[in-house]
Amino acid sequence: MKNLILASTSTLHGQDYLEYLLPTLKEHFSGCSEILFIPYARPGGISHDTYTDLARKAFGKIGFQVKGIHEYPDPVKAVRTAQGIFTGGGNTFLLVQSLYQNLLLVPLKETLENSVPYLGTSAGTNIAGLTMKTTNDMPIVYPPSFTTLGLVPFNINPHYLDPNPNSTHKGETRETRIKEFHQFNTPPVVGLREGSWLEVKGKEITLKGDLNARIFEAEKEPFEVKPGCSLNQVY
Amino acid sequence: MKNLILASTSTLHGQDYLEYLLPTLKEHFSGCSEILFIPYARPGGISHDTYTDLARKAFGKIGFQVKGIHEYPDPVKAVRTAQGIFTGGGNTFLLVQSLYQNLLLVPLKETLENSVPYLGTSAGTNIAGLTMKTTNDMPIVYPPSFTTLGLVPFNINPHYLDPNPNSTHKGETRETRIKEFHQFNTPPVVGLREGSWLEVKGKEITLKGDLNARIFEAEKEPFEVKPGCSLNQVY
Repeated sequence: MKNLILASTSTLHGQDYLEYLLPTLKEHFSGCSEILFIPYARPGGISHDTYTDLARKAFGKIGFQVKGIHEYPDPVKAVRTAQGIFTGGGNTFLLVQSLYQNLLLVPLKETLENSVPYLGTSAGTNIAGLTMKTTNDMPIVYPPSFTTLGLVPFNINPHYLDPNPNSTHKGETRETRIKEFHQFNTPPVVGLREGSWLEVKGKEITLKGDLNARIFEAEKEPFEVKPGCSLNQVY
Repeated sequence: MKNLILASTSTLHGQDYLEYLLPTLKEHFSGCSEILFIPYARPGGISHDTYTDLARKAFGKIGFQVKGIHEYPDPVKAVRTAQGIFTGGGNTFLLVQSLYQNLLLVPLKETLENSVPYLGTSAGTNIAGLTMKTTNDMPIVYPPSFTTLGLVPFNINPHYLDPNPNSTHKGETRETRIKEFHQFNTPPVVGLREGSWLEVKGKEITLKGDLNARIFEAEKEPFEVKPGCSLNQVY
């Protein structure tokens, strides 16, 4: 059964990396001694080692060891034998390209369907959806496919941002971009505001955190879902 | 010789569609009676017809006819025989996919290298660069390649936005995204703020409008270029 935390962001304004999630993560990963970290998304282009050190420092505060997947000679085996897995944010195109290049899509999906606890933040949350077609990231590399893990029956838009009514900028709002997505794609999209996460326990999907999530469906008006709500009652 | 206007945006806050560019466009397309419009980027998912009507209304104010490429039975022939061409903004992934599906990349490049005047706005400007890897758009469809027309020797980031020092949002700034691009790609990136455009006349590339552009190069500090500056002195 699935046991996932899919967070909109790793970090809240003014806080340390993962700080707001640490009490939740301590419980979520209980029983694990070591967490496998997937640093492929490389935020701001930082190295796998530097990124893994960041995760190591945060998880160290709640008593877990962290090892980067790039430290293992066989990344597929590392996934298949992991006690717990964390995929950090950064660039989703780069993350998905790296997962395909390392033949990790199927092993990761099978492992996460088999009770290994998972944390995704931002890009690491995007890949839990059906496709990466609702990422906010720049297409800096060309992955072999936009299809991702499909651990939930919808797409996710992390860092969801409401339109700013005072903005004079003419770039598309997030809502307009998701509307464009629905001209060509049928899956619902869950807009996860920063500070929100989805808790997936088997077939139960629950919205956590203090904020509503915004749900977009093709040819329907978007609507809000409250914290504590079960998303599998929607789908 | 090339004769291009590559604009960051079609529309400025509080103005009508293309309003700020109309005096420039009247001169740019002088000698044309009809402009071929490429509506493939479909902003907000609007139809080819609705989008073409928007362009037709704006160009009508300065005395030009507009016909959508979708109104022609043979889009390649439409490009090869056009007097002037305008590609509107919207979703760059969709635009590039449509250009590839209709086998238009080569005809469009060859036509625009042969003195046919061109206007691009937003996504229509993105495709003039080497690749579409510095678009801001959502990857709502999977184009067969990210390679675009290469009419200028760099990539363009339209709707360039400076970081907001008061923001509490943790999504990546535009500058961070472009920095990530440069981990994997060597071309310079021209960040074009709204209201700016590049005028390309043969080998001369000049920044127009009232605002500076921001230039990003791999492993260098970004720098500003002033209006009236020749970008081919930079490259």
